[in-house]
Amino acid sequence: MEEDKVSGKAEPSGWPAKAWSLLSATRNESPLIQCITNFVSMDLMANTLLSAGASPAMIHTVDEIPDFTPHARAVCINVGTLSADWLPAMKLAAQFACQSGKPWVLDPVAAGASGFRLKACLELVELKPTVIRGNASEVIALSKASLGPSKGVDSSHESTDAVEAAKSLAQASGAIVAVSGAVDIVTDGERVVGAHNGVPMMQRITATGCSVTALIAAFVAVDPLHALEATVSALSIFGVAGEMGMNLAKGPASLRMHLIDSLYGLDDAVVHSRVSITSFS
Amino acid sequence: MEEDKVSGKAEPSGWPAKAWSLLSATRNESPLIQCITNFVSMDLMANTLLSAGASPAMIHTVDEIPDFTPHARAVCINVGTLSADWLPAMKLAAQFACQSGKPWVLDPVAAGASGFRLKACLELVELKPTVIRGNASEVIALSKASLGPSKGVDSSHESTDAVEAAKSLAQASGAIVAVSGAVDIVTDGERVVGAHNGVPMMQRITATGCSVTALIAAFVAVDPLHALEATVSALSIFGVAGEMGMNLAKGPASLRMHLIDSLYGLDDAVVHSRVSITSFS
Amino acid sequence: MEEDKVSGKAEPSGWPAKAWSLLSATRNESPLIQCITNFVSMDLMANTLLSAGASPAMIHTVDEIPDFTPHARAVCINVGTLSADWLPAMKLAAQFACQSGKPWVLDPVAAGASGFRLKACLELVELKPTVIRGNASEVIALSKASLGPSKGVDSSHESTDAVEAAKSLAQASGAIVAVSGAVDIVTDGERVVGAHNGVPMMQRITATGCSVTALIAAFVAVDPLHALEATVSALSIFGVAGEMGMNLAKGPASLRMHLIDSLYGLDDAVVHSRVSITSFS
Repeated sequence: MEEDKVSGKAEPSGWPAKAWSLLSATRNESPLIQCITNFVSMDLMANTLLSAGASPAMIHTVDEIPDFTPHARAVCINVGTLSADWLPAMKLAAQFACQSGKPWVLDPVAAGASGFRLKACLELVELKPTVIRGNASEVIALSKASLGPSKGVDSSHESTDAVEAAKSLAQASGAIVAVSGAVDIVTDGERVVGAHNGVPMMQRITATGCSVTALIAAFVAVDPLHALEATVSALSIFGVAGEMGMNLAKGPASLRMHLIDSLYGLDDAVVHSRVSITSFS
Repeated sequence: MEEDKVSGKAEPSGWPAKAWSLLSATRNESPLIQCITNFVSMDLMANTLLSAGASPAMIHTVDEIPDFTPHARAVCINVGTLSADWLPAMKLAAQFACQSGKPWVLDPVAAGASGFRLKACLELVELKPTVIRGNASEVIALSKASLGPSKGVDSSHESTDAVEAAKSLAQASGAIVAVSGAVDIVTDGERVVGAHNGVPMMQRITATGCSVTALIAAFVAVDPLHALEATVSALSIFGVAGEMGMNLAKGPASLRMHLIDSLYGLDDAVVHSRVSITSFS
Repeated sequence: MEEDKVSGKAEPSGWPAKAWSLLSATRNESPLIQCITNFVSMDLMANTLLSAGASPAMIHTVDEIPDFTPHARAVCINVGTLSADWLPAMKLAAQFACQSGKPWVLDPVAAGASGFRLKACLELVELKPTVIRGNASEVIALSKASLGPSKGVDSSHESTDAVEAAKSLAQASGAIVAVSGAVDIVTDGERVVGAHNGVPMMQRITATGCSVTALIAAFVAVDPLHALEATVSALSIFGVAGEMGMNLAKGPASLRMHLIDSLYGLDDAVVHSRVSITSFS
């Protein structure tokens, strides 16, 4: 059975059962997730976490981190609308998470868009994120910059590059690295797993990528010892919600609504029949 | 009749009529409400005010308050994504409102989440809000801190505490205090009134609490001499919109949409048949 | 044929064909639009651009502009939640656009709300926006301030004023000026064209004005040599999407959703049967 080969770990009934158990745990435990994220995504990210059963807290100022971050079970940091005054809080929250052994997840939005942004992302990668999730160009930009240009992957073959870049970045950083795309790829630097759920129209809704990163934070919060499995499962569950939503949608705005409704209502049967996760190595 | 006992004031046909008259006045007068609020809630708060007939203005910089705040009929201040650079404008707007006898409403989001935040909330309470609306833990945190730990309410009985904390905070601050919950409680320190409308799923939508606080600001703007009645009515009307929305909703995201549509469309008959407000003391 | 009289330019089949060609070009070319906008509108603005086929980037810090703005095909600047720390980035992005001959569009939200805001808007107008879009009072405020009070238009006749103010502002600034209203007016200082599409309920949804400004930026990006035509077309297309959405809406929140879905799905036949643009001079 493909799923069992993939993980090489104790997963009695494979990926769908793992994904369902993580969603159930999120609903039962309602983990508090601190999000330091961009202005565009705050609404959808908070609603994604709420619909999955988690408890979001959008608290971003450096003045509150020493008091508040210790109460969070995971931290989600997203640089989408980064400015210099937000970076110290991002770093401090990452440090608090790191020092207390709590997971934190990095979304390096548009990592290559400017020198300022790339430098900020690299500084955050230094603070040992548990998971990094981006699209192919973000992961490639980060991987090249982390490894130096001479060791960089060949940008002329982008689809292969993304996997290789993700593996290199995972090895260099110690993080689980996820690359969103037609198939979402997740790697710890050795294993490579693909999550096949989702629909293309999700890319026509702003902040869906940011929101699935927050869902990863929630799943990693409830199972911090299996960050790769939690990451793959969150990507797949969010994709399944998108598939269910697509059955009712007439365009991107109604898909956005139905996706969140579907995430709220997902049951064991749908998760088991829809989750599609395979091993690539 | 219960409703008449509650208010002890001239309300010919009781609470539903009062609630309807305030919604009608908001629609007719379209009061300008200045909102200094958190990033997460800005969209839903503005749309809540617009759907109720009010005119929202999200203007938050200290540079504009002397020119702009005098034109607003009420101010809504919400500390959800507070940072140190936003606090002076919150205080200045509160002062302008206070000095000109205009109502202002405080939403002390997560008041107990950090020392920084609690201190900021207490400083705002000093500036004489007309209404303070929070959930039980926020009101309890604020009440304890206002009164000092020795006079604080006993945190071991939280449901009773919320009412007692609200009464103490109302007496100490001079504000009407509202506590959102399964039943929303509103008190001026002596009278205690409960608004029973709403549905549990509203808690799975981010910024519904923030948005009802803004609706309170609109209702208080059109009837500043009856802040308790305006507060109870806003909570009840928003709850009724949620109940009507729930009839059509399939999850939290569609509830959010239907709630706003319902608030826009509420008529006299629905308000009179649905509004449920009772006196507790 | 009215449409041919309007433009006096080579438009083989008139305005509907022009509007359709611009929407098609936006879908095909997916122009990158940098938006420095207010917190309230970011979500709807990004989703409007995505649903029209464009590629939004909400990047607002001065640190990134030298690296990033050269990659954008147009810049959209909106002062809705202006504060002093955001203004330098707005100016720098406008300068970069200007110097490289790229279009940039200004939305002077609430231009007259404070001296601080009016001054900021005037400084931005100095940086040669390609298009300025506001409502009547914003355009009148800006026009009066640009021309000085003695040359200002008579504020006692606001509906006529708006057209005259728009023409004066266009002449003084060199920008195409658009005034949103029951009929949207667009002028280059001489020609005056009206876009008649849209529904009144769009005014009960926050950020629809901001979002159509971003759509103008996208259309001007794909046809920078015909900024007046692009502006009128964007206003009309957005209005048509609102009309189609209104067929399905039950209130402002569902209209918001159906509007975006409709914008995504608009086809040649609907555009040709619905677009209503006429010349006023």
